[in-house]
Amino acid sequence: MKMFAPAAAALALMSAAAAAQEAPLTPDAVIAAAPAEEWRPIASTDLLVMDLAADAAGSPRRVVIQLLPAPFSAGWTSNIRQLVAARWWDGTSVYRVVDNWVAQWGGDEEKPLPPGLIEVPEAAYVTATEAGDAEGRDFVLTPEREEIVVNRWLDPYAVTGFVAGWPVGLGEEDGRTAWPVHCYGAVGVARDLSPDTGSGSELYAVIGHAPRQLDRNIAVVGRVIEGIEHLATLPRGRGEAGVYADPARRVPILSVRMASDLPEAERPSFEYLDTASKSFARYLGLRANRKDSFYQVPAGGVDVCNAPVPIRKAPE
Amino acid sequence: MKMFAPAAAALALMSAAAAAQEAPLTPDAVIAAAPAEEWRPIASTDLLVMDLAADAAGSPRRVVIQLLPAPFSAGWTSNIRQLVAARWWDGTSVYRVVDNWVAQWGGDEEKPLPPGLIEVPEAAYVTATEAGDAEGRDFVLTPEREEIVVNRWLDPYAVTGFVAGWPVGLGEEDGRTAWPVHCYGAVGVARDLSPDTGSGSELYAVIGHAPRQLDRNIAVVGRVIEGIEHLATLPRGRGEAGVYADPARRVPILSVRMASDLPEAERPSFEYLDTASKSFARYLGLRANRKDSFYQVPAGGVDVCNAPVPIRKAPE
Repeated sequence: MKMFAPAAAALALMSAAAAAQEAPLTPDAVIAAAPAEEWRPIASTDLLVMDLAADAAGSPRRVVIQLLPAPFSAGWTSNIRQLVAARWWDGTSVYRVVDNWVAQWGGDEEKPLPPGLIEVPEAAYVTATEAGDAEGRDFVLTPEREEIVVNRWLDPYAVTGFVAGWPVGLGEEDGRTAWPVHCYGAVGVARDLSPDTGSGSELYAVIGHAPRQLDRNIAVVGRVIEGIEHLATLPRGRGEAGVYADPARRVPILSVRMASDLPEAERPSFEYLDTASKSFARYLGLRANRKDSFYQVPAGGVDVCNAPVPIRKAPE
Repeated sequence: MKMFAPAAAALALMSAAAAAQEAPLTPDAVIAAAPAEEWRPIASTDLLVMDLAADAAGSPRRVVIQLLPAPFSAGWTSNIRQLVAARWWDGTSVYRVVDNWVAQWGGDEEKPLPPGLIEVPEAAYVTATEAGDAEGRDFVLTPEREEIVVNRWLDPYAVTGFVAGWPVGLGEEDGRTAWPVHCYGAVGVARDLSPDTGSGSELYAVIGHAPRQLDRNIAVVGRVIEGIEHLATLPRGRGEAGVYADPARRVPILSVRMASDLPEAERPSFEYLDTASKSFARYLGLRANRKDSFYQVPAGGVDVCNAPVPIRKAPE
């Protein structure tokens, strides 16, 4: 096997100290060397655990989705929490898979919706942020003030950045408005034509090149942080718009639960690298300018979806 | 089913005239309405036909790869043509699959290489182009002069454009140097550490977000134009660097042939939309600025990998 690109697995075998010593640094080595205090927990109350039917070989297929924190897409994530509580997705299916596009599941054609879901206006695709400090960099996202880190590299679609571990687009002046962006693994809300915004009962995950044209046109509500391969490897649909022409090919969803409602021993536990940390800044710089024993020509830039926010299982 | 995004399938049902009448235009409608003279044939002498072993259900898995035209990556594509002529890939396998990254096959650990392959220098990752007309837009790519169309939208990695149906990066002044870029479906040459450049016997196809950091660091030799799903849906490897830990999971490659060597009735036949045509310019503009019954907020930009060059089966 040619190396082709340094293997994360090989780097994982190096101690963090050894990785930090190696010169020149790689993005993976920076992540490996990040101190524990730069990692932040992902609340189990923000994690959806979706169990698909086992595959043909009998292997379980679990997909873990992290919901966006408020105020991003708050109306839709509130609906989603309500649908999970009602066990509404149990017995629905993944019924549409389009190569280099999306895998899609649920929806009110499979099952009537429970009463009480919020109708969210299109205006909610974008979130107004409170004016910040002199540099305009503070951002009220949660009860804590979260720092927006601007990605200084050009982007074809918008000024971009990161806040609270999420890649975002930034409007007007940086930090006045923000919206979650469609990267690989992003989970969004299927909808009919504008002004419909979708209820959140029908979701899709991006399984190809970032379809950034969807930003601000459709709600992003989260991202797959484990098990995306269970969606990305599904056979592509051959019916209209990639729907499985034969309903028997639909992939049953056994259950969708909040991780916090699972028995503690079964609860997945993750953390993300603080996007306002020094290590993340170093990582971002190296993603834009790789120069090491493998890379000879630094790109001089990186798009916001090509610097995935590092996420890992929480140490026991 | 929510529409989520207009279905190409539905548009295909409209006549070109009807699509052209519809306002506002969509990128798919522009493609559907492009006149026949804007479509250019892809030579069967530039197509690799790779047959993988049938899947578990017994369905055949054919992957069709278009090789880059000279002078791009000419040393490597020359080696690849030689390896196909020797039927060298027959009996090798796809043995590495990494989610949102690549599927990889072949290589000299599977089989000794035939003599006579060219060693290509790193300098060949970039192609010098002849100075052009007053606007610097002519480009000697083939015996015909091919027009470079510059993508005027920002790009984090380079000035970009299209030439002869291929997305490229453009260096220095536009049109002085060019290189093929890593988009979804791109096929490249695995290699060891620099200054190794790979022989072309071990190839990979991109099955995720465009890894543009590889541009100019590794040779792109072509793109999958049919059957990418047979690679993208393969189980992800769980060994080091995504290699199948169990060699029995490797996917056998039955044969790799030039399409021109297949019996005429079996020969796949494709054409691409001339990237110097009016329809392509219109398509590119609409990919950057979608505003129709589904899209309300035009992005105001598009990255070179998010405006895939339209390719279709040649009409009978």
